[in-house]
Amino acid sequence: MATEFRLRRRVQFYETDAAGIVHFSWFFRYMEEAEHAMWRAAGVSIRPPSSDIGWPRVAASFEFYRALRFEDEFEIAIRVDKVTKRSIRYACTLIKDDQEMARGTMTIVCVRSDPKLHAVEIPTEILEIVERLQR
Amino acid sequence: MATEFRLRRRVQFYETDAAGIVHFSWFFRYMEEAEHAMWRAAGVSIRPPSSDIGWPRVAASFEFYRALRFEDEFEIAIRVDKVTKRSIRYACTLIKDDQEMARGTMTIVCVRSDPKLHAVEIPTEILEIVERLQR
Amino acid sequence: MATEFRLRRRVQFYETDAAGIVHFSWFFRYMEEAEHAMWRAAGVSIRPPSSDIGWPRVAASFEFYRALRFEDEFEIAIRVDKVTKRSIRYACTLIKDDQEMARGTMTIVCVRSDPKLHAVEIPTEILEIVERLQR
Amino acid sequence: MATEFRLRRRVQFYETDAAGIVHFSWFFRYMEEAEHAMWRAAGVSIRPPSSDIGWPRVAASFEFYRALRFEDEFEIAIRVDKVTKRSIRYACTLIKDDQEMARGTMTIVCVRSDPKLHAVEIPTEILEIVERLQR
Repeated sequence: MATEFRLRRRVQFYETDAAGIVHFSWFFRYMEEAEHAMWRAAGVSIRPPSSDIGWPRVAASFEFYRALRFEDEFEIAIRVDKVTKRSIRYACTLIKDDQEMARGTMTIVCVRSDPKLHAVEIPTEILEIVERLQR
Repeated sequence: MATEFRLRRRVQFYETDAAGIVHFSWFFRYMEEAEHAMWRAAGVSIRPPSSDIGWPRVAASFEFYRALRFEDEFEIAIRVDKVTKRSIRYACTLIKDDQEMARGTMTIVCVRSDPKLHAVEIPTEILEIVERLQR
Repeated sequence: MATEFRLRRRVQFYETDAAGIVHFSWFFRYMEEAEHAMWRAAGVSIRPPSSDIGWPRVAASFEFYRALRFEDEFEIAIRVDKVTKRSIRYACTLIKDDQEMARGTMTIVCVRSDPKLHAVEIPTEILEIVERLQR
Repeated sequence: MATEFRLRRRVQFYETDAAGIVHFSWFFRYMEEAEHAMWRAAGVSIRPPSSDIGWPRVAASFEFYRALRFEDEFEIAIRVDKVTKRSIRYACTLIKDDQEMARGTMTIVCVRSDPKLHAVEIPTEILEIVERLQR
């Protein structure tokens, strides 16, 4: 079972829509926000200033169970679900007051830009960190 | 086979991120934008000013094949994939220069707010329109 | 001299654009985010669930001195600059490592929706809080 | 009097907020969207793929007179207000059904990245285009 990383977050007004709830596109941003916070907590940036390595998303999905509203406090729980030589898959849950609000997944691949993007193997020092997160 | 609705679109600068490509969260907004345009083309608004009916998303997914960049012109092709008494599922493809850039799905349910949201059956006049789109 | 409220914040990836810096539209969201946090710190929500009072913005401006980049940590310093019977004006500064990055202003008015929006006098209990913040 | 460029636009659902109107931060994006469309209409991109020239915003402001709502159609009228050796100022009006909804300004400067951004003189071929737009 992978280590779960939790990020506490509050709904901002600009994240809501005319239905009075958080627009569904924001859940994908929440998931990415938690991913980047998990990397920082592990001691690395997913995008250091001088790096030519990038991590485009190749798949992302969410199931939405309950609506979030302005000023709601919630948690984004993310964990590394699967690691291959070139990709990382995350699983993510949004929780408010012990209730599961939504559940998502996201797969990213390692690319190098020179300047066109092409998939490369995950650098060893990153792979070790990610595999540690997965345990 | 369902009628496919196509919306032509250009990438705006605020849709790009520091990787120089459209941020993945935007693909979900593109899909919804095409959905709403398809409804308008069918003669209805998905959210008329005085309506107490709403259409929250209960699931959404995308697979990303190629990156979109600033000022790229592309098309969002969307079609009604499945209709039940309370839900509609769409399938969506993003195309640039005859190349498939990404493929997505989205499921919405019909709710009434009084004021809490609860699922209801799709009103007959909407159901007829959506079933016609599906043919 | 008004009480200054400070909110610490980190730049998220989806806030950056293809120029590699935070898109300027985000500074306005940062300013509003700090405004809402200041209200919460003062014990009130700017938009309680059941309220028919709203606070549309009637003016907003920013001068940008330096760029913010992905993962930068910065502070939003906001203060109540002027209060009238129906409006509140804020002044705001963004600071990173003791450097002023940008300076903004925002004016909001109190409206009631019935259902059209029309300007009303600020409710006494809110006016007292805001005037206290201004001192 | 400068040539006015007009861009027709419809309010998207993700641009609205829980107050049921377009979030004010979007007006700044509308203004930039019209700016980029005006440049394209004049035969140039504000950010060609291989260019090391950029145009950060150094100031932006808006006054908001009326609210925009989901599916509203409106026009963004933008014109070059002032040109200096290193900067361009725009003036912008948002119009719906012949009513002025908002009025904005935006100033941009020409920078070269090597890799730090520093202000440079506007390249001659761009200056000629912008001065022609101003007439």
